[in-house]
Amino acid sequence: MTTQHLIQQIHQKQSFLCVGLDVDLTKIPEHLLQYEDPIFEFNKRIIDVTHDLAVSYKPNTAFYEAYGIKGWKSLEKTIRYINEKYPDIFTIADAKRGDIGNTSSMYAKAFLEDLDFDSVTVAPYMGKDSVEPFLAFENKHTIMLALTSNEGAFDFQTLEVNGEELYKKVIATSKTWKNSQNLMYVVGATKAEYFSEIRKIIPDSFLLVPGVGAQGGSLSEVCCYGMNTNVGLLINSSRGIIYAASGMDFAEKARAEALKIQQEMQRILANR
Amino acid sequence: MTTQHLIQQIHQKQSFLCVGLDVDLTKIPEHLLQYEDPIFEFNKRIIDVTHDLAVSYKPNTAFYEAYGIKGWKSLEKTIRYINEKYPDIFTIADAKRGDIGNTSSMYAKAFLEDLDFDSVTVAPYMGKDSVEPFLAFENKHTIMLALTSNEGAFDFQTLEVNGEELYKKVIATSKTWKNSQNLMYVVGATKAEYFSEIRKIIPDSFLLVPGVGAQGGSLSEVCCYGMNTNVGLLINSSRGIIYAASGMDFAEKARAEALKIQQEMQRILANR
Repeated sequence: MTTQHLIQQIHQKQSFLCVGLDVDLTKIPEHLLQYEDPIFEFNKRIIDVTHDLAVSYKPNTAFYEAYGIKGWKSLEKTIRYINEKYPDIFTIADAKRGDIGNTSSMYAKAFLEDLDFDSVTVAPYMGKDSVEPFLAFENKHTIMLALTSNEGAFDFQTLEVNGEELYKKVIATSKTWKNSQNLMYVVGATKAEYFSEIRKIIPDSFLLVPGVGAQGGSLSEVCCYGMNTNVGLLINSSRGIIYAASGMDFAEKARAEALKIQQEMQRILANR
Repeated sequence: MTTQHLIQQIHQKQSFLCVGLDVDLTKIPEHLLQYEDPIFEFNKRIIDVTHDLAVSYKPNTAFYEAYGIKGWKSLEKTIRYINEKYPDIFTIADAKRGDIGNTSSMYAKAFLEDLDFDSVTVAPYMGKDSVEPFLAFENKHTIMLALTSNEGAFDFQTLEVNGEELYKKVIATSKTWKNSQNLMYVVGATKAEYFSEIRKIIPDSFLLVPGVGAQGGSLSEVCCYGMNTNVGLLINSSRGIIYAASGMDFAEKARAEALKIQQEMQRILANR
């Protein structure tokens, strides 16, 4: 998907919501466990009731790998379902990969070509040649960890290197890489005050923002500091939506939660 | 596997060789492609002819993910084969994972419990709560990226933070984490002069060393600067061994390459 197509979808749906499909068998409604592939059945229902409110879905690969081959089948079925039924959705493989060049190429091929995700998340620690193989795919996007939403973000990401914080150095350096126009960045909502600093370095890039809701971040604050003329934000919510209820009405309740966020986004878009 | 058991294996085999199982279908002998699972058949043969010369095997998960569900089946069969037939082998899932706490727990369970690897590689960028879930498994090991063997290692890992390089800060900080006795570190052989610096911070930890051979690092130099009283090194070789030849004799040739390295290791152990 091109960035222009994503922006157009945001305006059309009046939403920049990404739904995180972090599906845990111990948390999904019991009545789905009778199916051969409960995770896929759960995802399908969540997607069917939220696809008009969200512009993006983001399965975190850990939750699928945790179930081995069965889990990979669920992941494969989920991405194929979205791509076939809702081709306007921007899909994110939240995999946080990164390795030496020839190995990163294998990961990039797996997620961007074979599974045909629109984007994949990557970790920056190994530098340029660990990320560039992901950037080589046309109309695909690489979402690099910059400033994450967890407590451990302060262990290394905010350390000062030559007078600026490491996450800023990571972002600034990545702009010099080949095909850097295909980069987006993960910036946690729990650190809203950092967004204006980040916008000085990358005014135009899309930011994928976890941490609204369950992890305590505020949507309006993030938008205040992080939004650009093209919106430039994808706000992720996982548990708050997909586990809104665990009974027969889980899908309705998930839709209601997604709708609340979409309506808040619509207000924010109207008032900017 | 306990660290003591690994050390005992090193002395018994007079080897601290780890064979990297980075298996690419385009590079394995053609006659294996007729089998239902060529990657597993290749691994089985490589393992059978090198298990007395190596103390460890390290499949890089990227090479398996690249083949989707089929690839995961090959990985699962490979680890089960090693664990059943050669239980004294130290197994490494080279996955370079790392995510927020509850997600890292899923990865840790997948690799250390379900697949039953002895260890898994992780990336440090997200800090303490992204690594500690891996450290919680008894007699399992977490091998954290410190200073990698690729060119991009100089992008961020060697930047100065408060007067010391980031990789040193990463190593020193990780020592304060819960169950840090279960940590090992990735340190690339291409940077042999850094080993003595690293040994000042972690004299006793095991280091997993990629980059000998194909990437240009020297075994004797690494041992000179990096070895400790318990040896403390696992030297990885992938392509140099597993792709030593591509004909019917590929396994013999792989053994010959592994034997050369093991004999050099034996000399080094005798002379220290």
